[in-house]
Amino acid sequence: MKKLLSVAAISVAAATSPLMADEGMWQPSQLPLIEDQLEDAGLNIDPEDLSKLTEFPMGAVISLGGCTASFLSPQGLVATNHHCAYGSIQFNSTAENNLLEKGFLAKELSEELAAAPGSRVYVTTEVTDVTDAINDGLTDEMSGMERYKAVEKKEKALVADCEAEDGYRCNVYTFHGGLEYRLIKQMEIRDVRLVYAPSSHIGKYGGDVDNWMWPRHTGDFAFYRAYVGKDGKPADFSKDNVPYEPEHFLKVNASGVEKGDFVMVTGYPGRTNRYRTSAEVENQFEWSYPTFRTILHKYIDIIKENAPEGSDARVKYASTLAGLNNAEKNWGSMIESYGKGDLLARKQKLEADLEAWLLDNPAMKEKHGDALSQLDALIKEDIKDQAVELKKWGMNRDTLSGTAARLYRLAIESQKPDAEREPGYQERDLIRIKEGLKRMNRRWDADVEKALYKHFVAVYAELPEEDRVQSYDKFMGIDEEFNAEKFNGKVDKMFAETGLTDEETRLSWVGKSVDEFKASDDPFIQLAVATFEEKHQKELEEKEQSGKFKKLRPQYMAAIIDYYESQDKAVYADANSTLRVTYGNVKGYSPKDGIFATPFTTLEGLAAKHTGEEPFNSPAKQLELIKDKQYGKYQDETLNSVQVNFLSTVDTTGGNSGSPTMNGDAEFVGLLFDGVYESIIGDWDYNPNLNRSIHVSSAYMLWVMEHIDGAQNLIKEMKIVR
Amino acid sequence: MKKLLSVAAISVAAATSPLMADEGMWQPSQLPLIEDQLEDAGLNIDPEDLSKLTEFPMGAVISLGGCTASFLSPQGLVATNHHCAYGSIQFNSTAENNLLEKGFLAKELSEELAAAPGSRVYVTTEVTDVTDAINDGLTDEMSGMERYKAVEKKEKALVADCEAEDGYRCNVYTFHGGLEYRLIKQMEIRDVRLVYAPSSHIGKYGGDVDNWMWPRHTGDFAFYRAYVGKDGKPADFSKDNVPYEPEHFLKVNASGVEKGDFVMVTGYPGRTNRYRTSAEVENQFEWSYPTFRTILHKYIDIIKENAPEGSDARVKYASTLAGLNNAEKNWGSMIESYGKGDLLARKQKLEADLEAWLLDNPAMKEKHGDALSQLDALIKEDIKDQAVELKKWGMNRDTLSGTAARLYRLAIESQKPDAEREPGYQERDLIRIKEGLKRMNRRWDADVEKALYKHFVAVYAELPEEDRVQSYDKFMGIDEEFNAEKFNGKVDKMFAETGLTDEETRLSWVGKSVDEFKASDDPFIQLAVATFEEKHQKELEEKEQSGKFKKLRPQYMAAIIDYYESQDKAVYADANSTLRVTYGNVKGYSPKDGIFATPFTTLEGLAAKHTGEEPFNSPAKQLELIKDKQYGKYQDETLNSVQVNFLSTVDTTGGNSGSPTMNGDAEFVGLLFDGVYESIIGDWDYNPNLNRSIHVSSAYMLWVMEHIDGAQNLIKEMKIVR
Repeated sequence: MKKLLSVAAISVAAATSPLMADEGMWQPSQLPLIEDQLEDAGLNIDPEDLSKLTEFPMGAVISLGGCTASFLSPQGLVATNHHCAYGSIQFNSTAENNLLEKGFLAKELSEELAAAPGSRVYVTTEVTDVTDAINDGLTDEMSGMERYKAVEKKEKALVADCEAEDGYRCNVYTFHGGLEYRLIKQMEIRDVRLVYAPSSHIGKYGGDVDNWMWPRHTGDFAFYRAYVGKDGKPADFSKDNVPYEPEHFLKVNASGVEKGDFVMVTGYPGRTNRYRTSAEVENQFEWSYPTFRTILHKYIDIIKENAPEGSDARVKYASTLAGLNNAEKNWGSMIESYGKGDLLARKQKLEADLEAWLLDNPAMKEKHGDALSQLDALIKEDIKDQAVELKKWGMNRDTLSGTAARLYRLAIESQKPDAEREPGYQERDLIRIKEGLKRMNRRWDADVEKALYKHFVAVYAELPEEDRVQSYDKFMGIDEEFNAEKFNGKVDKMFAETGLTDEETRLSWVGKSVDEFKASDDPFIQLAVATFEEKHQKELEEKEQSGKFKKLRPQYMAAIIDYYESQDKAVYADANSTLRVTYGNVKGYSPKDGIFATPFTTLEGLAAKHTGEEPFNSPAKQLELIKDKQYGKYQDETLNSVQVNFLSTVDTTGGNSGSPTMNGDAEFVGLLFDGVYESIIGDWDYNPNLNRSIHVSSAYMLWVMEHIDGAQNLIKEMKIVR
Repeated sequence: MKKLLSVAAISVAAATSPLMADEGMWQPSQLPLIEDQLEDAGLNIDPEDLSKLTEFPMGAVISLGGCTASFLSPQGLVATNHHCAYGSIQFNSTAENNLLEKGFLAKELSEELAAAPGSRVYVTTEVTDVTDAINDGLTDEMSGMERYKAVEKKEKALVADCEAEDGYRCNVYTFHGGLEYRLIKQMEIRDVRLVYAPSSHIGKYGGDVDNWMWPRHTGDFAFYRAYVGKDGKPADFSKDNVPYEPEHFLKVNASGVEKGDFVMVTGYPGRTNRYRTSAEVENQFEWSYPTFRTILHKYIDIIKENAPEGSDARVKYASTLAGLNNAEKNWGSMIESYGKGDLLARKQKLEADLEAWLLDNPAMKEKHGDALSQLDALIKEDIKDQAVELKKWGMNRDTLSGTAARLYRLAIESQKPDAEREPGYQERDLIRIKEGLKRMNRRWDADVEKALYKHFVAVYAELPEEDRVQSYDKFMGIDEEFNAEKFNGKVDKMFAETGLTDEETRLSWVGKSVDEFKASDDPFIQLAVATFEEKHQKELEEKEQSGKFKKLRPQYMAAIIDYYESQDKAVYADANSTLRVTYGNVKGYSPKDGIFATPFTTLEGLAAKHTGEEPFNSPAKQLELIKDKQYGKYQDETLNSVQVNFLSTVDTTGGNSGSPTMNGDAEFVGLLFDGVYESIIGDWDYNPNLNRSIHVSSAYMLWVMEHIDGAQNLIKEMKIVR
């Protein structure tokens, strides 16, 4: 690794304590800075080791893109969550041989199955601070757009340079809103195979009902294996490929954990908003979430109405509805937690304290100026049209419109040299674009989409003319007075005439020229062409705005970091899908007055939840073993059972799914797979009393493998610590 | 008290330990026998004192008939549950002056309001063992009916003799199914006045939603005062009456309790079935409750269908529906607990162990013979027709039919000398009969009743002719083939023609002669007359059966008691609405894997439940005080709040509502008011891990009185221990 220490890392060099016990998604490079805390908490290995990405144990931690995983054997055996491998299990299932139902175990390498198309294992090999490179040439006088473009250009050049080496994928990640940039290089292993997954009756036990919930009894684990070419380099799937031999893998502790144990989780958390200003927090919780939720309810109602229970359409929308219901639970929890807590008051106090501190420290005031008030002014400007924009979203959300717009954009971008194209439309993005075009039909039904289209455009049409998109109105025939009947007729006609509902046709548009688009008589292609310019103008305005944020957000974050440093507090950056380490303890919590969630669940609790109906339909063999108290070598003496799931205080979010949970000796003790309901607001606010992550214990994993699925071959392959 | 020691008490004289820690609803006379356990558990007063009904503290414990209460001042101030005083608060409310809504406080004696008609305070003054008197003259050769009548005759004579003293009410209670009989004499105070009740938003906070639930935040308390004539004797309501001066009252501890504290509850638990045989348990949980539940669902559906939401009829059935829903929750919980637990297996083991013990002990075998198998044979005989009987219930359940039948029976019984009349139809019962006749209309609607009648008689009509009631069929015109249309027409006509829907008319039938009934053209009176003989024959058969149980149940219980005595275990009798003492500790529990219910709730938890919608609509003043942490003198240092409700292991059931909860010094520390969901099966089975009672803390009671309702006059009247 080159230039590992970042601006933030330097700025916290003197810091001796994290913001708050257990809070923090730390960049590996920061860990030596909080080594005292780590050792006090119970880490037995050298904290310095955790900062070395290619050493033990970090070298064993990998990304699946969206999920995290880890190597558990010298032959590239990969452990992750069942829900992270779900697509691959589903992909290999047929009606006659349903692996989701039965589970799957390869008894030898030759039986392992190709994972779903697009499955990847990413091994982070290098993190380079490119802040100076990105900032070089940026001036205060630049417009937002100039800044946006300058940054984008540098990023693309850095990525292209880095990806010149075959088999690697590179990205520039933004930290602290642009105070730091890092180029992250990952080896991209593209032959990934499914090795083992328990039945969904174990791996998804509790299903959506138990999602975000405690007590939990989910065996949310599965195993992949990474394969490479005989030369050891990433290669496309081939029978000749060989298991990847990672330099490092984690030993598996067969006992799981005990109450109070130190645990750490390494992984790729997606996104958090811990440093947003009070204005942003207030707007998000008092306007955005409640408003989104109202729209969401309508969205769900329309789907249910047009895809009645038992219809084919309902089957197609099952996963969409599950996602919408998850959002409903998610936003509902956040609104609830916000209402009960004092997040806004604390934000306001922080800002007042910061301002007072700046006034007391002229040097700091000189350095940071009016960072907060300037950022706040920009935020105010940014959200002033949000109600209008939300209504306009209704005109943009449609799948066919979106598909046509993306295809036309691809044609436009393809006219430019690759390096100058809009990110997402470069050569490197083509495979994903095509995969997206293939996926559409499985989750799409014309009647449902038409009903959604008609409803949400009618809402859009309520906007005064000056707020509407003129080219869209003209194309769709929307006049001063919105004529719903006429409009609905037009929509029906477009849906009837378009060829984009056909997968082949969609794919055939990839690679076509702008002129071919302009000459098309497909109504959605025509709509895309007709509205492109006006929508593109809007996009440019947004980039201008984004460029302004790229200037002001880092200034504010620099002030925040200096302020915390003055209190000897280390600052971690908001999650941004880069590798992080969080640590804490195995610990319960009180979700409400009079109730305490104890940190473990047991086999007996699992059996008590069994109803025989999904999602609580435990396999008969498992119930029998539990009834007979067949705990084998995995009995927890304190619990007098086998531990199934456990709670800890580690600070995680989406993207951490599948992360290895390690004890103080960096032994694998389980997999992180969820957080509790009260921690959903954790993306904005870490509450040490309520923020709990949920893990599946290594003891339960091994018990299932040994006693239920007979996966002795895998247990033998791993290094088990008893 | 005379002859205090009963057969059971003698038989357990050598016993040194209760069946199980915290289990047991002990007769006061038994407490000296388990004094070591009481002292070990934390009782500081002499256990002997608890056996003396007219001494401290038992002299302070009173019955309200259905609920329990206690004296908290020398001027007859009575504390009980809000839900026990609910009828009186409602009775004194008007639309303009809704005391349920506002709460009520009399600042001085003259402001106190007469409680609802029929309100009583019963002070138990004497318990006499009358087993020998009842048994005298009973022989093994007697038929069931002869035994039944002989026992009834003795009981009536004992009661009549005891009630010769004015102002007392006496009853003979059966213990251990007839192994013991006790005559209990209670002073019956009939001028009872409402002194203080907090708003229902406090007293019923959580309502039916929280019923049987933890965490709980209900201020379920209210105050009455007992009044007597100037001569100190019970008297009808009069302005000249004076507060009753009890010989004893409880001091109130202002701090409530701490985790682990010894607590005891004295009160009048209604009915338990702890000593039922395995055959009875199996039948009850595997046939009765599931079957009743199916009928219950139909019952609820018919009411909801015929009394639609928002209708006047729905208002009339609100309380009926609440009761049915409570039964649904109750039976549901019992079925659930039975399914999860091993009650039946333990019963079977007990019986096997008992039989083995008898075989090992010839003297005992000689004494108890085949008590269990004889009882089991009778049980089998008794339940063989239960499915038929349940269908017949459908023909009997109707309110108008029942009213007519009761009125006609009263006429028939009134032909006999009072002492020979059927219990329930004697002179002493007249007031209650009339009160029942007055109550009917408030909860009755012709359309709903007709729909219920038609449905349940159609079910009855499915029975083969030989199982049906011939006189009923003849009267109603039910033939071989049930003609629903014809039958429904008959029902409509009867409902249209009867005068019994009118209160005056109903009351006018009290005192009329048998001949007047026979001459009546009221269709329900005619029905009662026509079916009386056949139904009466059925009643006689049931009495014959009951007489047989009176012989066999005590024999089985005697064997059980000897068996437990052989293990040095004391045996308490099933609850039978007589005064009992139970003791235990303040303690939480684990309702399910991964969750622990902590033993206290706090003001903050109460505020967190507030939604502004019933039943979670806390008064603004209370919320304000909580927000400002105005705990006053009632702050619990450990909780850093005021304790609201708490859990304990005491063994209670319906009828215990309003019971004083006392600490080891017999100071009042709260009121028992409910049990947790998992303890509903407690009527059949005490599970030390799951059986928890719920109490409102004296600290919360005093905090509400002082800080919200300004009831300083009452606080001054009580003796507060701080």
